[in-house]
Amino acid sequence: MEPVSAAVSAVLPAGGSGERLGGATPKQFCGLQGRPLVSYAVRAMERVSWISDIIVVVSPENIETMKSIIEKYGHKRVTVVKGGITRHRSIFNGLKVFAENQSSNRLLQKPEVVIIHDAVRPFVEEDILLKVVTAAKEHGAAGAIRPLVSTVIASGEDGCLDHSLERARYRASEMPQAFLFDIIYQAYQQCTDHDLDYGTECLHLALKYCKTNAKLVEGTADLWKVTYKRDLYAAESIIKDNLSQQICIITDVKEAVVQVEAISISLSKNDSHPQNIFSGECYNFLCINDKEYATEEIQQLVDMLEKSNIPLLYPVVLISVHLNISENISFSIGLEELTKIKKFAREVKKKNILVYGLLIQYKDHFPLQETVNSAAALTMALIKDRNPELIGQLLVA
Amino acid sequence: MEPVSAAVSAVLPAGGSGERLGGATPKQFCGLQGRPLVSYAVRAMERVSWISDIIVVVSPENIETMKSIIEKYGHKRVTVVKGGITRHRSIFNGLKVFAENQSSNRLLQKPEVVIIHDAVRPFVEEDILLKVVTAAKEHGAAGAIRPLVSTVIASGEDGCLDHSLERARYRASEMPQAFLFDIIYQAYQQCTDHDLDYGTECLHLALKYCKTNAKLVEGTADLWKVTYKRDLYAAESIIKDNLSQQICIITDVKEAVVQVEAISISLSKNDSHPQNIFSGECYNFLCINDKEYATEEIQQLVDMLEKSNIPLLYPVVLISVHLNISENISFSIGLEELTKIKKFAREVKKKNILVYGLLIQYKDHFPLQETVNSAAALTMALIKDRNPELIGQLLVA
Repeated sequence: MEPVSAAVSAVLPAGGSGERLGGATPKQFCGLQGRPLVSYAVRAMERVSWISDIIVVVSPENIETMKSIIEKYGHKRVTVVKGGITRHRSIFNGLKVFAENQSSNRLLQKPEVVIIHDAVRPFVEEDILLKVVTAAKEHGAAGAIRPLVSTVIASGEDGCLDHSLERARYRASEMPQAFLFDIIYQAYQQCTDHDLDYGTECLHLALKYCKTNAKLVEGTADLWKVTYKRDLYAAESIIKDNLSQQICIITDVKEAVVQVEAISISLSKNDSHPQNIFSGECYNFLCINDKEYATEEIQQLVDMLEKSNIPLLYPVVLISVHLNISENISFSIGLEELTKIKKFAREVKKKNILVYGLLIQYKDHFPLQETVNSAAALTMALIKDRNPELIGQLLVA
Repeated sequence: MEPVSAAVSAVLPAGGSGERLGGATPKQFCGLQGRPLVSYAVRAMERVSWISDIIVVVSPENIETMKSIIEKYGHKRVTVVKGGITRHRSIFNGLKVFAENQSSNRLLQKPEVVIIHDAVRPFVEEDILLKVVTAAKEHGAAGAIRPLVSTVIASGEDGCLDHSLERARYRASEMPQAFLFDIIYQAYQQCTDHDLDYGTECLHLALKYCKTNAKLVEGTADLWKVTYKRDLYAAESIIKDNLSQQICIITDVKEAVVQVEAISISLSKNDSHPQNIFSGECYNFLCINDKEYATEEIQQLVDMLEKSNIPLLYPVVLISVHLNISENISFSIGLEELTKIKKFAREVKKKNILVYGLLIQYKDHFPLQETVNSAAALTMALIKDRNPELIGQLLVA
């Protein structure tokens, strides 16, 4: 991606109360795969190398929560700022960190362009950030837009329809937005109390106070804002979907070759190889062995994963596959063994690693293809669901 | 609920191509828990006793698909009508069934009030239907509205911001809507081709051609329209959530009492009793026995469920709980037994019943509370996930 020829920082307002969500926890602190939503938005900024400082603005009572999130997930370049009672006042507070000496925060280097992005839009890509920053450098202001999903109507005094807007002429204003710092900061400085208390749209302030018509940039569908409980469900499913695209298979069992190929085929992407195990992009591991169902082999992998920092941002799925190639028809699983693996899995879960067991029968008189299909389906189910309650269970293909 | 003093029918446009979904299947035919989305919307109308006829308008190539859905899920009072190339043309075709003799459809009794509702809004409740119908009877037209989630902006010719709308003054127009039949039908008859080809808003037509200012009715958040893939994820999660609110526990094991209470506590609603088993509102069954892990007992339940029609609309979860109270420490599970239950579960799945096994250890030297908690957690996980790949597996608490 082309580098950005400007100093860029970002402000993330994260002070909302989440009243539309209907829960006690503000939505930016709701967990997705165990990690708060705001951490996803921070991570989306942090992984963009050309963003210098990331300002997260939270309400006073959540400052300590936010600081502990930053520490827990190892976020870098982040400054936590105390928010105001409205969205605009919070954003203004965030901008002040670059312009005014304050007691609570050190003065940060003023950027040429500042990105403003919601903490509750977790899926923002570098591509759209680059587009709005580039457009802001040229036009002074820029923002992502999306087509309207519903017709917008104006209501009369009597609660009846006054008129409806022609849907094609209007757009939904989304985030991220970007501004020349001096423009948006000037705009906020000139704001009336009414603007600060009742307004919501930064592009509007740049237009009203600095005569800057923001460039509108078509965004992708994944920029949507987590607003209702159903949005949390959707975000959780999207994250699980993304996490289940790659699997690393670790084996030294020759007999496993047939199964391994069959299992790999069922994945939508199949570009992972054992040598990429610790590249940090794979959150699913299949550890195949033909020894007795035991935990020694996976303990090694757990130790490596723990050192690698991979389980920090997302839970890692680790499936211990036991290939049973003995011809002993009366093979059975002892309850003590099952209890042992459950205990082990509970310990490892504290490290954000989810361990499951999978037993594959590999016998001449068994229908092989059926067993292989079943193993592949179970593997995909465990990876897609990432269900913490099922850890330590032994499934049979 | 107060009865409606008008003849009411409903038209469900279901002709969209689903291009925003990014898939080959139009979203109204996408499966949620195995059942197409459109069937949920039909069911939402069908369960309202005062709605006479339900007209589903589909594109010509989907007429047979729609007819087979109606047959498969036993929908009543439904007429399938061939749609036009746009939304308005499809709705107009739906209305014509009440007004014009046509070769393909018999003339239906003209209703006083007609509801128009999207096939891709599956969670509409009787309450809001009653509200829009009542308001339409008084005002001639009525529609559900919701607050705007994003600011709406107008774009200039140059792709820059022209102006933003004050969010508080506008609303999103949602569905359901209702009209005096004569008003909306007259409006459609007077429509221009431009209206029919580019318009989307029925309330607008009633205003433009019949000078009827629709009454706007505040709707609930669950009226949202399934538009993007994330909306399918959200809908699936909501359905699973709803399905996991009740569980029926069937047992004749005295020793089970302690466990049963503990398991029930973990459910958010606990108002189901064995005598309500076949009321048709419960989709989860826990069948507890202390005999050898076998399929005979659950086969009886499967037979009863099959006769009851309960598994028709949603998959039923049936957990066969085996209480192991033997003091034999070297208890083990034979592979042949596991293979047998897997085979049984695969057969039963064809009847839309998902069978899982759960083994609870009940021994003096085991920590009882831990086992009970584990059993409750596993039960909830199986019920919430309803994962068809895990059927026939034996989980150990």
